[in-house]
Amino acid sequence: MKTRRSTRLVDMTYYLLQHPRRLVSLTFFAERYQSAKSSISEDLVIIKQTFEQQGVGTLQTIPGAAGGVKYIPYMNSIEADALIEELCRQLANPERLLPGGYLYMTDLLSNPRYINGAGRLFASLFAGQQVDAVMTVATKGIPLAYAVANYLDVPVVIARKDSRVTEGPTVSINYVSGSSKRIQTMTLAKRSIPEGANVLIVDDFMKAGGTIQGMISMLEEFQANVIGIGVLVEADHIEERLIEDYVSFIRLSEVNTRDKVIEVVKGNYALPEFKEEMVSEEEIKL
Amino acid sequence: MKTRRSTRLVDMTYYLLQHPRRLVSLTFFAERYQSAKSSISEDLVIIKQTFEQQGVGTLQTIPGAAGGVKYIPYMNSIEADALIEELCRQLANPERLLPGGYLYMTDLLSNPRYINGAGRLFASLFAGQQVDAVMTVATKGIPLAYAVANYLDVPVVIARKDSRVTEGPTVSINYVSGSSKRIQTMTLAKRSIPEGANVLIVDDFMKAGGTIQGMISMLEEFQANVIGIGVLVEADHIEERLIEDYVSFIRLSEVNTRDKVIEVVKGNYALPEFKEEMVSEEEIKL
Repeated sequence: MKTRRSTRLVDMTYYLLQHPRRLVSLTFFAERYQSAKSSISEDLVIIKQTFEQQGVGTLQTIPGAAGGVKYIPYMNSIEADALIEELCRQLANPERLLPGGYLYMTDLLSNPRYINGAGRLFASLFAGQQVDAVMTVATKGIPLAYAVANYLDVPVVIARKDSRVTEGPTVSINYVSGSSKRIQTMTLAKRSIPEGANVLIVDDFMKAGGTIQGMISMLEEFQANVIGIGVLVEADHIEERLIEDYVSFIRLSEVNTRDKVIEVVKGNYALPEFKEEMVSEEEIKL
Repeated sequence: MKTRRSTRLVDMTYYLLQHPRRLVSLTFFAERYQSAKSSISEDLVIIKQTFEQQGVGTLQTIPGAAGGVKYIPYMNSIEADALIEELCRQLANPERLLPGGYLYMTDLLSNPRYINGAGRLFASLFAGQQVDAVMTVATKGIPLAYAVANYLDVPVVIARKDSRVTEGPTVSINYVSGSSKRIQTMTLAKRSIPEGANVLIVDDFMKAGGTIQGMISMLEEFQANVIGIGVLVEADHIEERLIEDYVSFIRLSEVNTRDKVIEVVKGNYALPEFKEEMVSEEEIKL
């Protein structure tokens, strides 16, 4: 039985959101709804216009027999700024202060309401790059890295500070933690990144950047490319920053344990208005 | 300007999917689209019927001034079985064999295409329970646990095998790994679970169940309740299983390293047809 337009619009929106960045053929939708391809095309125009109008992404249409449509997620700058302001407000709570000037952030890093949004924002910022994998180091940044990977539809690669038997052969590197100057080890399964892959590094917190430098060294061992670096929170007033080119959502400008004051400001991210041209060329040529 | 129904249907579907299990008031939608509440109600009926027809969830409507609508995600059994069959097929590849009869699963556990689906399936199976948090132990199960938490709109709680300064005071317990009989330590930040919380335990792999037994002991320390246990893969032919009541998606029935044979079958999960009554009472009374 032919499906009504209203039902199709709801189900197509659902289907596309469940499969970000995946090519769906018009034939698939035509058969799913027992409808003509011309009707499906009209539906897709409505969905595309709605997404673009709301700034939540676009649909890419790829012509030809092997063609179809792809949903590219995006976040508009109003939603992005509201999310980051809310995170800043939460982080500035003096109850988060821990000995040594650390902040308790685990609750924010494990709350889908924030992490899902932050993941979509990172995916928006790197929408124009050809990303093959998202990399992080265990443990706290994993939900965030997974959320980014989900919106980019690529695997998440997790380096660890121990090595486990169930991962097969691994590569280990040593790196120097930028702030404590201690030598640390990082391990990654050999099978996890193919040579030449373009990798987006994501982490929850960056001080001097030693851990991220470690991930960069690891990627060199795999002959993979660093396509970008994104951190949720960066500490300010760092004497010697090891990493220059990165995106941050939040900057911790002051942590005063004695007076119990935390000062938090927006990081260096800048979200341009979404344009279809921003999506990488490789995507369009598929 | 008043928004057209077709545009409203697409954007409302998008909005509800981005906010699973969260109460959205009719006033919010009416203002967003400059439309009458009666029109919004009609839209919601279409969305609800479409979701239920496709078996991907439902909308709960809560009447009254503080009322609104909630999207409850679900997965139908056809989609669930297709996902599990695909995972079984992938797992049976003899190239996954590692020394000691272990299987390389990291690629599957870090691929959003599988993990997102498995997360939605766990969330469907526990849709009728009042879940306050999803718990796992670092590292490999974290993306899966986060995906479940995302669909249930609750935080994910991550126990670790080390303790880090940035988490504040922690609780540690010792537990015996069921298969290797070694004593291990598990640590969890004190702030992470409130007393009396209902916790769903999720892990990627279960052999005898020692690690899950450790999580149960940990939850006792927090005076929290185990509301359910879900594992992606369970090993079969276990002499002494420590855990009886659990849900598994996949059962590893044989791993023969010498002949390079892996036998994999569907686990013990059983997904009933979705009924609105299955959603927990607390949700409806909100």
